[in-house]
Amino acid sequence: MSTVYNFSAGPGVLPAPVIKQIQKELTSFHGSGMSILEISHRSTLFENVIDNAKQDLKDLMQVPDNYQILFFQGGGTGQFAAAPMNLASKHHRLALLDSGHWASKAHDEAIKLGYQVDVLDSTKSEHYHELPHLSLTFNQKNDDYLHVTINNTIEGTTYHQINNPTHLPLVGDMSSNFLAERYSVKDFGMIFAGAQKNLGPAGVTIVIVRDDLLKKVPKIPSILDYSLFAKKNSLYNTPPVFSIYAAGLVLKWLKKQGGVDVMESHNRKQSKMMYDFLDQSKLFRNDVKPSDRSLTNTIFTTGDQKLDLQVAKEATQHGLMSIKGHRSVGGLRASFYNAMPTAGVQSLIDFLHDFEKKH
Amino acid sequence: MSTVYNFSAGPGVLPAPVIKQIQKELTSFHGSGMSILEISHRSTLFENVIDNAKQDLKDLMQVPDNYQILFFQGGGTGQFAAAPMNLASKHHRLALLDSGHWASKAHDEAIKLGYQVDVLDSTKSEHYHELPHLSLTFNQKNDDYLHVTINNTIEGTTYHQINNPTHLPLVGDMSSNFLAERYSVKDFGMIFAGAQKNLGPAGVTIVIVRDDLLKKVPKIPSILDYSLFAKKNSLYNTPPVFSIYAAGLVLKWLKKQGGVDVMESHNRKQSKMMYDFLDQSKLFRNDVKPSDRSLTNTIFTTGDQKLDLQVAKEATQHGLMSIKGHRSVGGLRASFYNAMPTAGVQSLIDFLHDFEKKH
Repeated sequence: MSTVYNFSAGPGVLPAPVIKQIQKELTSFHGSGMSILEISHRSTLFENVIDNAKQDLKDLMQVPDNYQILFFQGGGTGQFAAAPMNLASKHHRLALLDSGHWASKAHDEAIKLGYQVDVLDSTKSEHYHELPHLSLTFNQKNDDYLHVTINNTIEGTTYHQINNPTHLPLVGDMSSNFLAERYSVKDFGMIFAGAQKNLGPAGVTIVIVRDDLLKKVPKIPSILDYSLFAKKNSLYNTPPVFSIYAAGLVLKWLKKQGGVDVMESHNRKQSKMMYDFLDQSKLFRNDVKPSDRSLTNTIFTTGDQKLDLQVAKEATQHGLMSIKGHRSVGGLRASFYNAMPTAGVQSLIDFLHDFEKKH
Repeated sequence: MSTVYNFSAGPGVLPAPVIKQIQKELTSFHGSGMSILEISHRSTLFENVIDNAKQDLKDLMQVPDNYQILFFQGGGTGQFAAAPMNLASKHHRLALLDSGHWASKAHDEAIKLGYQVDVLDSTKSEHYHELPHLSLTFNQKNDDYLHVTINNTIEGTTYHQINNPTHLPLVGDMSSNFLAERYSVKDFGMIFAGAQKNLGPAGVTIVIVRDDLLKKVPKIPSILDYSLFAKKNSLYNTPPVFSIYAAGLVLKWLKKQGGVDVMESHNRKQSKMMYDFLDQSKLFRNDVKPSDRSLTNTIFTTGDQKLDLQVAKEATQHGLMSIKGHRSVGGLRASFYNAMPTAGVQSLIDFLHDFEKKH
């Protein structure tokens, strides 16, 4: 079988050397005679795993000392509940920019849990092909924080610059471009990210939260409780040991590649190859406003639903996997996470080019 | 290095053939050229994984058709919140038997979330060396369900028989003897179990719940919502793909061993070897009432804290890992989950015997 490239939006491609290392040491972790799959989370072996992962993440993102790095379960969806439960304890109200599907999911979860949500701006009427921006006419006094989906996986848009002129803590959902692009952690009150895109296998969710936002909150499930997890070094209950271990290996790999800035250059280069191709193509197009285009998730379409499906089907036959768009929007999508090699992007472009010539 | 046996109470020992299979197919799952760590949860490949795991679990436990099998994240601790949130929506009140540490944790979580808890009986004054039983003098009309910790991992006790003469649905925390002993699912309204003891690596939690108990409940985080997960076949959001895959392999392995009844005989034999040794020993003892003794978690002690630590330390040097008791009770503990071979139990007994002779 020829090389397979995985363009899935998540769970997504992981670095090949990391998968090989997991494979190599799976039967005996660090010579212990036990698998990482079966060691106690209270063992020194695992304490080193979680402490190293935290330190490496701190180094890579330059996380200031007044932020906690926490490991949860439940993905971004879990954080759509955890964020208001932990951070909107005063006014039970938050502000939000409606930039697409996942912002809307965060909105709905907060409403479901009894919080009020002020939608400051929305680009729904533009099919989310550009990003909404902050309106300063709202009454900031009423809101506990501002929720922004930094990278919109489904719509292929990204806030490359963080602009928050309010006094509100910014909560950033970075699930799909975590560690793919440089952000300054101090611009945020809280950042969260499900691992299964840029960081590791599904099953662990990172929360980076500023100390002054940690409060003891009543009536919150313990598994979503930031202050409890901060107090217990994310070991209040059994953590997802394997997922944290695998994420830790990806962080080491990332350091070896040169860190976030090197990764961002790599991602800029690769996404530019793809956007350049799409912009000159007569068959395929990307409708996103150029300055808002995502480095990690490129959406595109022929404009014909049936033909898009045909493209995805033929791509699969060429080992170019999972380029079908999200079921909510249709079309096509290719995700270029950190572990995607340039050869993968080139193969996809070559395939699309050939497809275009034939049609 | 000589053979290592892992007596950890959880995460605990997994079947060696399962670990080898994971290792073998880690770089290319079912010939896909992609790792199970990076495939989409919306792929046919993964849909087969989750559907097979459900069917195998259904076969092994003889789960009736009017029960749902759901996969959550967050462990037993997550279910301490999810159970009252989903099942105590009418009276906001539950009944509970206080059989030890984890029952007490379930109690505290329900209280924290604003539910009332009727503790029907407690054996705290007997240091939980025997199990509390149901008192029928309480007013059943006020409670939504009855919570029982079926196996008490820390205290080494098990309800081998289920006796529920009330009309209340029984909620069974089976985290530490799930599939290790035969229970009739229809005796329960809901059963839950964190995987990391008998079923697989940490990161997935099984919920088996009767259809008539599934209700749409307001103000519940989606990641803890039974009716939502039932509707979405546990794929409302990204599930812990790898943990479900690994649990699925353990279920296949279990079927190959002959199923739950064969496993129970195996576990009865092994725990009897250990209890027989302890009962004749002049140095070590187990204080649990014989009829309540656990098949999966044997606690024991010399009665001398320092000597217990010495035993645990020397055991480690002999490749007999993690026999220190839980930090809340001290002493020693050996967990014999399904994947523990008889040779492991014999090695531990031989070591304890030799230790006794030397002291």
